[in-house]
Amino acid sequence: MSKELVFGHKSPDTDAIVAAMAYAYLQSKLGYDVEAVALGEPNMETSFVLKHFGVAAPRVVKTVSNEVDKVMLVDHNEPQQSADDIADVTVTHVVDHHRINGFNTAAPLYYRAEPVGCVSTIITNMFAENKIDIPAQLAGLMLSAIISDTLLLKSPTTTDKDREAVKALAEIADVDYESYGIEMLKAGTNLSAKSDAELVSGDAKSFTMAGKSVRIDQINTVDLNDVISREDGIKKAMNDEASEKGYDLFLVLATNVLDSNSELFVVGEPKDVVEKAFKTTLKDDRASLPGVVSRKKQVVPPLQDAFEA
Amino acid sequence: MSKELVFGHKSPDTDAIVAAMAYAYLQSKLGYDVEAVALGEPNMETSFVLKHFGVAAPRVVKTVSNEVDKVMLVDHNEPQQSADDIADVTVTHVVDHHRINGFNTAAPLYYRAEPVGCVSTIITNMFAENKIDIPAQLAGLMLSAIISDTLLLKSPTTTDKDREAVKALAEIADVDYESYGIEMLKAGTNLSAKSDAELVSGDAKSFTMAGKSVRIDQINTVDLNDVISREDGIKKAMNDEASEKGYDLFLVLATNVLDSNSELFVVGEPKDVVEKAFKTTLKDDRASLPGVVSRKKQVVPPLQDAFEA
Repeated sequence: MSKELVFGHKSPDTDAIVAAMAYAYLQSKLGYDVEAVALGEPNMETSFVLKHFGVAAPRVVKTVSNEVDKVMLVDHNEPQQSADDIADVTVTHVVDHHRINGFNTAAPLYYRAEPVGCVSTIITNMFAENKIDIPAQLAGLMLSAIISDTLLLKSPTTTDKDREAVKALAEIADVDYESYGIEMLKAGTNLSAKSDAELVSGDAKSFTMAGKSVRIDQINTVDLNDVISREDGIKKAMNDEASEKGYDLFLVLATNVLDSNSELFVVGEPKDVVEKAFKTTLKDDRASLPGVVSRKKQVVPPLQDAFEA
Repeated sequence: MSKELVFGHKSPDTDAIVAAMAYAYLQSKLGYDVEAVALGEPNMETSFVLKHFGVAAPRVVKTVSNEVDKVMLVDHNEPQQSADDIADVTVTHVVDHHRINGFNTAAPLYYRAEPVGCVSTIITNMFAENKIDIPAQLAGLMLSAIISDTLLLKSPTTTDKDREAVKALAEIADVDYESYGIEMLKAGTNLSAKSDAELVSGDAKSFTMAGKSVRIDQINTVDLNDVISREDGIKKAMNDEASEKGYDLFLVLATNVLDSNSELFVVGEPKDVVEKAFKTTLKDDRASLPGVVSRKKQVVPPLQDAFEA
């Protein structure tokens, strides 16, 4: 059996990196020859997590077809979020918790998606289905990924399955997940160490909506003023990036992970679609979105609907 | 929770109907309000199966949005194989064993695909994962679906998971699957009772390949001469249907389910792509394809590749 690479999306967050490591471990136990890699360097939060549990970061790759013919995807399926040469390899497995969009294959494959808060939750259950034990260190990483994706189980994407997985993983890893979770979220939101360009690309994903190229970034913080005070620089970085990469519309969502409110910055067009999507009025290309914390559940679907209306 | 309909593809075969019934049963046990329906009348084989196990056929529907807002799909995902108004409803769950093509959603969903011989095999394992017992009557139906899709475990699509599921279901249903399987396959191939038009539409599926509308039907038989002797009528029916529905290319694969050989009839263009796909030369728009029994594994992928080359 030829070797396959396992990886999450570009601009990887903690789940994109950890889910690749967890799924690779599971698949290796099931007899596959696999290596977890990443499509980018770990962010601050992920670096904290890997250091906390004493695990090395996966190797970073930009392309995959120079190494393998077959790959497994975690935490994404849309081609523009994947390796640059994803069209040149065969996707044999996907584990994801996003919408399916633009993902087409020539042959049948393994595809496992559930509308839960985190891919590491799905993989936790796949370990149980296959009666394979999760090592304590890996359980700590997976626990961190769920805390990250669900903002300590407070995001509206959180399901009972995420809550159950957190409890089970915390027990295996022997971690007090609430105190550890706050420490981890804070470690991931030290914005002063980041340039404006880093802020608007740190967790950015690309989407195609009604033919338009849409970029959506999310900045997690424990104090929205840390972002708002940098508004001019952030908008300039958004404009620079949009010109360079050809994005029609660029949204940056700054989210206070402790109180679950967001501030939205918008560059590009059509802005009226953004206003319609979030039932708001932009003032100086900015709007407050109280209660919005989930890009996947509270930003992408209404924006897609507004584009298609 | 609002009611959802569960259904397989148009021109339903035994798995399309049975998998919908099995998945609806499983989901009802998991708390969903569901009804299994079908996008067409049961074929001869399915009628034999339903009668054998004393189960009524599911209600036949053409559209779904007049009844529900949400649906669950089994044994297909490509929109052209689904309900005519599939774009007007939300797909919340899919269980399938085909390639993913043209299937896009606005929101995350449950998607479970595995490259095994039959969807009823996947659902058999989902019952186990959820620790829910399969009633004997339903086990008999699911066993029949696997025998049908894998031609009694002889199709190249057959996997160890299908073999294990057949054994488990045969035990629950208390059926000698080998003698029952031959009886069932023979019951499904009484071609004399069908018109030429029925033969070329009985198990037909539509595909889009390189922008062309491609229709592929499969006729199972226990004697290829029963099909070859009707060649003129079958080609006329293919031509009529292609003109009426606007298919660019129409393939009918007649398969001997007992010895695993097929005869291919071709109407429309591009015929050179068909010859390239199957490394054969058409003679009077016809070719023998020894060892070919699986549309999904031995017809669609090489044809798709040839179209894209």
